[in-house]
Amino acid sequence: GAEQPAETGSQAGDSGKFETLAVSNSDGVYKIMLNRPSKKNAINYQMYEEWGQALKEAAEDKNVVLAVVTGSGDYYCSGNDLGNFANIPPDGVKAMAEEGGRILERFISAFIEFPKPLIGLINGPAVGVSVTTLGLFDVVYATDRATFQTPFSNLGQSPEGCSSYIFPKLMGAAKASEILLFNKKITAVEACERNLVTEVFPDHAFKSETETRIQQYAKLPKMSLQMSKYPTREMEREMLHKVNKLECKVLVERWQSEECFQAIMNFFSRKG
Amino acid sequence: GAEQPAETGSQAGDSGKFETLAVSNSDGVYKIMLNRPSKKNAINYQMYEEWGQALKEAAEDKNVVLAVVTGSGDYYCSGNDLGNFANIPPDGVKAMAEEGGRILERFISAFIEFPKPLIGLINGPAVGVSVTTLGLFDVVYATDRATFQTPFSNLGQSPEGCSSYIFPKLMGAAKASEILLFNKKITAVEACERNLVTEVFPDHAFKSETETRIQQYAKLPKMSLQMSKYPTREMEREMLHKVNKLECKVLVERWQSEECFQAIMNFFSRKG
Amino acid sequence: GAEQPAETGSQAGDSGKFETLAVSNSDGVYKIMLNRPSKKNAINYQMYEEWGQALKEAAEDKNVVLAVVTGSGDYYCSGNDLGNFANIPPDGVKAMAEEGGRILERFISAFIEFPKPLIGLINGPAVGVSVTTLGLFDVVYATDRATFQTPFSNLGQSPEGCSSYIFPKLMGAAKASEILLFNKKITAVEACERNLVTEVFPDHAFKSETETRIQQYAKLPKMSLQMSKYPTREMEREMLHKVNKLECKVLVERWQSEECFQAIMNFFSRKG
Repeated sequence: GAEQPAETGSQAGDSGKFETLAVSNSDGVYKIMLNRPSKKNAINYQMYEEWGQALKEAAEDKNVVLAVVTGSGDYYCSGNDLGNFANIPPDGVKAMAEEGGRILERFISAFIEFPKPLIGLINGPAVGVSVTTLGLFDVVYATDRATFQTPFSNLGQSPEGCSSYIFPKLMGAAKASEILLFNKKITAVEACERNLVTEVFPDHAFKSETETRIQQYAKLPKMSLQMSKYPTREMEREMLHKVNKLECKVLVERWQSEECFQAIMNFFSRKG
Repeated sequence: GAEQPAETGSQAGDSGKFETLAVSNSDGVYKIMLNRPSKKNAINYQMYEEWGQALKEAAEDKNVVLAVVTGSGDYYCSGNDLGNFANIPPDGVKAMAEEGGRILERFISAFIEFPKPLIGLINGPAVGVSVTTLGLFDVVYATDRATFQTPFSNLGQSPEGCSSYIFPKLMGAAKASEILLFNKKITAVEACERNLVTEVFPDHAFKSETETRIQQYAKLPKMSLQMSKYPTREMEREMLHKVNKLECKVLVERWQSEECFQAIMNFFSRKG
Repeated sequence: GAEQPAETGSQAGDSGKFETLAVSNSDGVYKIMLNRPSKKNAINYQMYEEWGQALKEAAEDKNVVLAVVTGSGDYYCSGNDLGNFANIPPDGVKAMAEEGGRILERFISAFIEFPKPLIGLINGPAVGVSVTTLGLFDVVYATDRATFQTPFSNLGQSPEGCSSYIFPKLMGAAKASEILLFNKKITAVEACERNLVTEVFPDHAFKSETETRIQQYAKLPKMSLQMSKYPTREMEREMLHKVNKLECKVLVERWQSEECFQAIMNFFSRKG
């Protein structure tokens, strides 16, 4: 399943400015590949910013019909890079938490505001915020090697990505809570049954099957696609920004809590 | 599966006034049969108006417990009659699009405001607006011969019938987008898994099984049924009218677009 | 599957004050066992009040991480005790209906406002309001002996527990209406497919499997769990109170209707 970082296409413009992403832009498809494979594509602050910028670039480029997000290597994304919490001076926790909240809120906003079809190609395991944001995609294709887990309470934290609003709508609170509150890891097939994933492919066919579909979609009337997405998002836009703000506010408190501090210390000492 | 146009019941009043529908009204069941089988029950402007009127008649008749919609012949309904777009003078496109928008908005409003249980008997393939409106039914029974497709972007258009709000609630955005944006045709069993359909019956048993259920339902306490539906619809009524208006506004723009013009021309030339 | 009433734990405080419930409180788990097994745990007015009080106690006790609700004996709960409708003087129907509405609205409010994870252990058949309230739980585990039925229109009544808002979100209107309007009884597996139930266990393993999970959940960071639930509920809180009020208002009218009177008379005469 490992895939090499994408060649940037001939129309890619200055996408070489991204250090954490490999971006291509051709034939109407803007492809964002998370590109820190040695870190399982964990999202450091730079990647949050670059991913958000890439979405804006794809939104504004008139030649782009749809955007695709996938991961380089064996993982889709291992979630928030816990290195973001390392080396914080004791008197800097509050400032750091608030800055983290602003970065996260802006990142999620870029998904809420993305006006074109957004397609996830989940090429391997997905963790944390890379799972919760899938509720803001329009189509999510997964290899059968993919798994989905949001170990928030294990780390003393809480859900983001509008998942506390969207996940109960996808699968009901009874199934959403197992994932969002109780750290349950689910398979690609389970994620499909729970409406988080559109379709699951055998790993050997994943790349070819999904490329065929994406090429086909990119040939459809561009404005028709965009205007077909518009009312869906418009009816929920205000609600989504509201829940994004609330989730980030709760997380900023969490990041300053003793519970979260202890849980993350335990995580590092287990790894260490 | 082909069914003859319904005899109008003895209590049918002046339902003979409908040219595009065969309507019966007896034993508490108001049955609307789409009745242009030679056109696969495609909805021309007259049928939009008559279908809406029939729903109003069923709503107001105190003897009616519930309403049923089905199709005459092999199709349930092939959607908007593209003949509605034929023979429009070049300088009349805007007026025609706006008139089409008003007709559609009024038609969908009749479903939103229908206060009694509304049961769909999907006797064969369903296309376009006859699929999207199913989200406004209370029960949908389908034969296993039925299929469901909304080829909006193929025709340069966009979803209606409140589907851009309701479909993501039924099956999640990841599965709704395949249908509403990317023209995916699904089977009756898939439509049931995606919560658009209540139950699927083998074609040979479809008529008898569904008639048994409907007769049973029509004997239940009338006001209890109506008041049981009331809070569900009341909580969403404002939202549904809002999305209906927005979808129609978007479609009126679509109908005047070059993309839509080209796509419909291609359709006619392929058929022609 | 029959289970003895729970021993009250050493930290149980004055939970002995409940006559219709057996309550225990230890190791972070506040367990509410409906305890009228000879009446299949039917909810009389006293049980409505005590169940609501127990939820408040669990919410306020800082040592409580999560709450669990289950039934004593073979049933989870047979729903509203129709004895609540017995022996009402003809001139007292209105006052009685209004008092019933107030009790019900307060009871449902206690679920809406419950801030910690609420876990249902459905140990056997569930009927009426004990089914509809499951939409307000965070996790629902069921034995495969459990069934779920809301025979509202059979009794001339209408749904409560916010189910007219929540059930269509869980499973779509097409499947919700079969249950809420047309009295369909579903199995535990069907309830799981319809997102009302998280997971179904074989009856012989139900107790041990669910206890393992609950003990594990109760060890997670307490405030992280509570704050993970918070945005989900906060985004819907106003809507839930609104639908609760509306459902209770409709029911108060129903309880004074001839339809409901006749249906309940028929029920009692069938029972003899």
